[in-house]
Amino acid sequence: MGRIGIPLFNDVEELDVVGPWEVLGMWTQRWPEDGWEVFTFSDDGAAVRCAKGLRMVPDLAEADRPPLDVLVYPGGRGTRPQVHDEHRLAWVRARRADVPLLTSVCTGSLVYAAAGLLAERPATTHWASLPLLAELDPSIDVRATDRFVDDGSVITAAGVSAGIDMALHLVARLAGDDRASQVRRAIQYDPAPPVANPGNDPG
Amino acid sequence: MGRIGIPLFNDVEELDVVGPWEVLGMWTQRWPEDGWEVFTFSDDGAAVRCAKGLRMVPDLAEADRPPLDVLVYPGGRGTRPQVHDEHRLAWVRARRADVPLLTSVCTGSLVYAAAGLLAERPATTHWASLPLLAELDPSIDVRATDRFVDDGSVITAAGVSAGIDMALHLVARLAGDDRASQVRRAIQYDPAPPVANPGNDPG
Repeated sequence: MGRIGIPLFNDVEELDVVGPWEVLGMWTQRWPEDGWEVFTFSDDGAAVRCAKGLRMVPDLAEADRPPLDVLVYPGGRGTRPQVHDEHRLAWVRARRADVPLLTSVCTGSLVYAAAGLLAERPATTHWASLPLLAELDPSIDVRATDRFVDDGSVITAAGVSAGIDMALHLVARLAGDDRASQVRRAIQYDPAPPVANPGNDPG
Repeated sequence: MGRIGIPLFNDVEELDVVGPWEVLGMWTQRWPEDGWEVFTFSDDGAAVRCAKGLRMVPDLAEADRPPLDVLVYPGGRGTRPQVHDEHRLAWVRARRADVPLLTSVCTGSLVYAAAGLLAERPATTHWASLPLLAELDPSIDVRATDRFVDDGSVITAAGVSAGIDMALHLVARLAGDDRASQVRRAIQYDPAPPVANPGNDPG
């Protein structure tokens, strides 16, 4: 059984968690024969209050979770203090040692950067945090326009909703493109934003 | 203050809730001057276990919630028993009487249909439930290919991830296209699915 864990913490961004959760939960629940499971955990196992106020209850406490094959680190304003939190950074470095594949959504990559895990690697983050990513580790090859960056043992995604695309890529990588296409179909992911993105306008 | 409420129930689909929640939460938190708020509620105020296993804690119990200007009814397998649940259907009909704008995501529209609220109206749902939508009320003008259908006092969305697009449309309707574009930018909603959708292939 392959295991994918998503850490929850206060002020985590809701969609950073639930975008990948929905993709991975649909996959693992509907196609158990692929041999993967996904769960959430928090430091103490208690509920967290997310950045927009939604409260989520994790499946497990850190002390009770099994070893991971994949970590999906979400972002949100809760990551801001984490980049200066030596306890948190030591935990992340320990995961680099025991988790083969580290992934992140949005500003989750800032925590990886602060822990030194993105040195000399290509990576991305939420567009508003691109300067901070470069500041935390100037050796990072910051990819400002990529939806997600797969560098082998690390995958980083752009802001918030990019976690959906990154998670579909993860399914494709772990179980093949056909399975990822089936998951995409199951969540009817045919996005059609009804308004323009001003950030995409030239200039 | 305009109020938007999202009901939570067991086996609600996670992204049906959190797609709109993220869009509406970003909007109301970052632009409070627009005068809107969004909250979740459940029958008894207790936590619910969603369709893929994530547990969420609602803000309020039904008995304690204020009147709503907009209802966002999510889908998921939890809606299946609701279409036969007279207590639930009576609740939904009561909301038609006191909530100016009813919206739904995915199979949430099946509950509206079973309550008779979609009679003679255009509407949609998750692609796999389109036949059931027509069966629940043959007078519905089923829109099989629309991402969402705005029929004035009712807006229904297609499956799961379509709630994000519907919620951005809702922001545009309530606060203008420019605001919806700002929210889109804030959640970096520039979707780029990394695999094909087999359901979109001809034939």
